Amino acid sequence: MSQNSTPVSKRRIVILTEGHTEPVPAKTATCILRYRGDEAVAVFDREQAGKTAGELLGVGGDTPIIGDLAQAEGADTLLVGIAPPGGRAPAEWKPILLDAIARGMKIVSGLHDFLGDDPELAEAAKKHGVEIHDVRKNNERDVASRQGVREDCLRVLTIGNDCSVGKMLTALEITNAMKRRGADAKFVATGQTGIMVEGDGVPIDCVVSDFLNGAVEKLVLGNQHHDTLIIEGQATITHPRYSCVSSGLVHGAMPHGMVLVYEMGRDTVMGMSPLQVPSLEDTIEAYERFAGLAMPSRVVAVAMNSRRFTDDEAQAERERVSERLGLPVADPIRHGCDDLVDAIERLRGEVIPAAATATATG
Amino acid sequence: MSQNSTPVSKRRIVILTEGHTEPVPAKTATCILRYRGDEAVAVFDREQAGKTAGELLGVGGDTPIIGDLAQAEGADTLLVGIAPPGGRAPAEWKPILLDAIARGMKIVSGLHDFLGDDPELAEAAKKHGVEIHDVRKNNERDVASRQGVREDCLRVLTIGNDCSVGKMLTALEITNAMKRRGADAKFVATGQTGIMVEGDGVPIDCVVSDFLNGAVEKLVLGNQHHDTLIIEGQATITHPRYSCVSSGLVHGAMPHGMVLVYEMGRDTVMGMSPLQVPSLEDTIEAYERFAGLAMPSRVVAVAMNSRRFTDDEAQAERERVSERLGLPVADPIRHGCDDLVDAIERLRGEVIPAAATATATG
Repeated sequence: MSQNSTPVSKRRIVILTEGHTEPVPAKTATCILRYRGDEAVAVFDREQAGKTAGELLGVGGDTPIIGDLAQAEGADTLLVGIAPPGGRAPAEWKPILLDAIARGMKIVSGLHDFLGDDPELAEAAKKHGVEIHDVRKNNERDVASRQGVREDCLRVLTIGNDCSVGKMLTALEITNAMKRRGADAKFVATGQTGIMVEGDGVPIDCVVSDFLNGAVEKLVLGNQHHDTLIIEGQATITHPRYSCVSSGLVHGAMPHGMVLVYEMGRDTVMGMSPLQVPSLEDTIEAYERFAGLAMPSRVVAVAMNSRRFTDDEAQAERERVSERLGLPVADPIRHGCDDLVDAIERLRGEVIPAAATATATG
Repeated sequence: MSQNSTPVSKRRIVILTEGHTEPVPAKTATCILRYRGDEAVAVFDREQAGKTAGELLGVGGDTPIIGDLAQAEGADTLLVGIAPPGGRAPAEWKPILLDAIARGMKIVSGLHDFLGDDPELAEAAKKHGVEIHDVRKNNERDVASRQGVREDCLRVLTIGNDCSVGKMLTALEITNAMKRRGADAKFVATGQTGIMVEGDGVPIDCVVSDFLNGAVEKLVLGNQHHDTLIIEGQATITHPRYSCVSSGLVHGAMPHGMVLVYEMGRDTVMGMSPLQVPSLEDTIEAYERFAGLAMPSRVVAVAMNSRRFTDDEAQAERERVSERLGLPVADPIRHGCDDLVDAIERLRGEVIPAAATATATG
C-alpha cells in the first residue's frame, strides 16, 4: 500500500517502541510499517524480543521485534514509534538512543520534547556525526490571509470524535484509492507520523498557536496545484485537551467537505474516561457549524475503524450507521475506500463549477 | 484606575511606540498608560517628540513623547508598546533598543520574536548587565484534565467579534468594579499586555497549540481560590487567523458566562477588509454553541467600545443594542461597569448553588 510518490530515499529503519508495542500507543510504528514497510527492518522492544510485528501490532508481518540493535544489521535509522500524551521520551530510553547514536544511526523523533535539545544526546550526535531529526520542530510564523486560494482545488478534511481513531490512515487510504483511479490527489500531512510517511507536511500541534491557522493555510496554498487535497485531521474540536489544534486546522484548511472517522465500540474519550465521546450526529453538527464560520462545509462520508470486531459485526454496524446518518460508511482497511471516494467525487461536482460542467457534458 | 493588588515593584518606564503612536497599533502603550500610568515617565517616538500621550493616544495626559532616551531622566525600563501582526520588531528599532541597553535600562517586550534571541541585543544586554524580559516566552507543557475545578468559583470570559475591540480593557474594568464593591475578583491575564499590567498570567497565543487548552486550565486552577475569575479574551473563534487561540481559550477556561465586547462602527475584520465582522447575534450563537461543547455557557452582557462616537450616539447605540439582544449594554469607560457586574452577579445566583442560597437567605 506504499503508493506515495514523494521521493524519500530508502532507509533501513529500526522502530523504537520499547515497553509500548501495542497498536494504539505505537500508532507511529504501525503507520510506518503499513505505509513505509519496505524500509522497516525491525521493531525494538527488549521485553517482546523474538516475536514479530504482525503478532503484536497487526501489521508488519514477519518484521522481527529485537532487543539489541546489533541484531539489526545495516540499520541506519532509529525512528521513535510511539506518541505518548505530552510527547516526552521515557527516561529509560536514553541508553537505547545513545547506543543507536554510537552505531552511527540517524535518530528520527516526533516527540514534543526535542531529542536534539537534550545535551547528552546532542553531544553524542556531534561526536559520532549523526543527525537527530525532530520532526515536530518548526518555526511557523505566518498568519492566514484567505488570499490566493484556488477555487477548483477540492479540499477534504478527515475529522473525528476522538484522538487515535484513524484520521491519518483514512486520509492516506482515500488518497491512495483516488490515485489508483488516476486522480491527482495529495495527502496533506499535519502530524509527525503523517510527515514521516509522506515526506512533507507541518506538525501543527507543535506550532505556536497564533500561527496555526496560517501554517495550515500555507500547506493548502503550497499543495493546491493538485486537483484534490485530502487533509489529515487532528483530534477533534470537542476534545477537552486539543480543541485548539482541531479548530485552527478546520479554519485554516477551509474544507469543502469532511469525512468523519470513528472507532466502533469506543464510548469514552481516550485517556479521559469516564468522559463520553460525543455521538456521531453531535460531532457532525459541531463540525459543520464550526467549519461554516469560515465557509460552508459538510460531512460527506463516514470512515469506521472496526479493528476490534468481526466482519459480520462490522458489516451490521456499517449498514446501521449508514441508515442512521444517510451517508456512505466504510472501514478503509476492511471495506476499501470506494464508497468514500465516490462521495468525494459527488461533492466535487456540487461545489466546483468547472467539475460540475465537466460531469454534465463529459 | 490602577486598582491591581498584585505587587509589582514600581518602575520608571519609557514606552516605545516609534512610528506607531496611535491608539490601536499602540494598544499595549495605551493599557500601560491607563493601568500603570504611575510608572510611565515617557513615550518614545522620534517623529512625534514634543507632543503628549494624551494628545496622540487619548490616555496618559501630559506624559511626554520623547525622541531621545536622554530626556527620560532616571528611566530604568524600556517597554515595547506596540503589538504588530506577526509580532516582529521593526528593524529600525535596533539602535533604540541598543541605546536603552547601553543606558542600563531593562527591556520588556511582548513580541512573538524574542528580543533576547537576537544575538546583538543579547550580547549588549550581557555586556551592560541588563535583563531582556520577553513576556511571551513560555514553556507550557501540560494538557488539560478537567479535574479539580472548584464548583463555586464563577468564571467569566470576555469574548469579541474581532481583535482589538476591548476584551482586555473590559475584563480589567469589570474586575476593578467588582473589587470596588468588595468582591474577591481576579483579572486572569492571557495576553502579553494583560500580563504586563497584572504581573501574572500566560501569553496563550505563544503557547504550542497542543498545550493551549492545558495552559488556560492551569491558569483557572491556579486562581480559583478567588470567588470570581474575569478571564481576558483573545481574538474570536470566528477569526480566520486566530480562531485556534480563541477556541482553546474558551474550552480551557470553561466559563459559566461570557461578556461580548465589540467596537461600535467596525464593519470589517481588522487588517482583513473587506471581510465583514460577524453580527453580534451570530457571534453570540457561535460562542454559546462552541463553549457548550465543554459546558453550558451564555453571554450575559455586552461591552461596547464607542471611543469614536459622541455621548449621544453612544447612548442611542446602547439602547438600540440592548433592546435588540435583550442584554445589558455599556461602554466600560463611558458608562462604567455597574450594569455588566449586575449581570455577572445574577449569573452567579443561577449557576452556583451556594451563591443562590446565600442570595435567597442573605
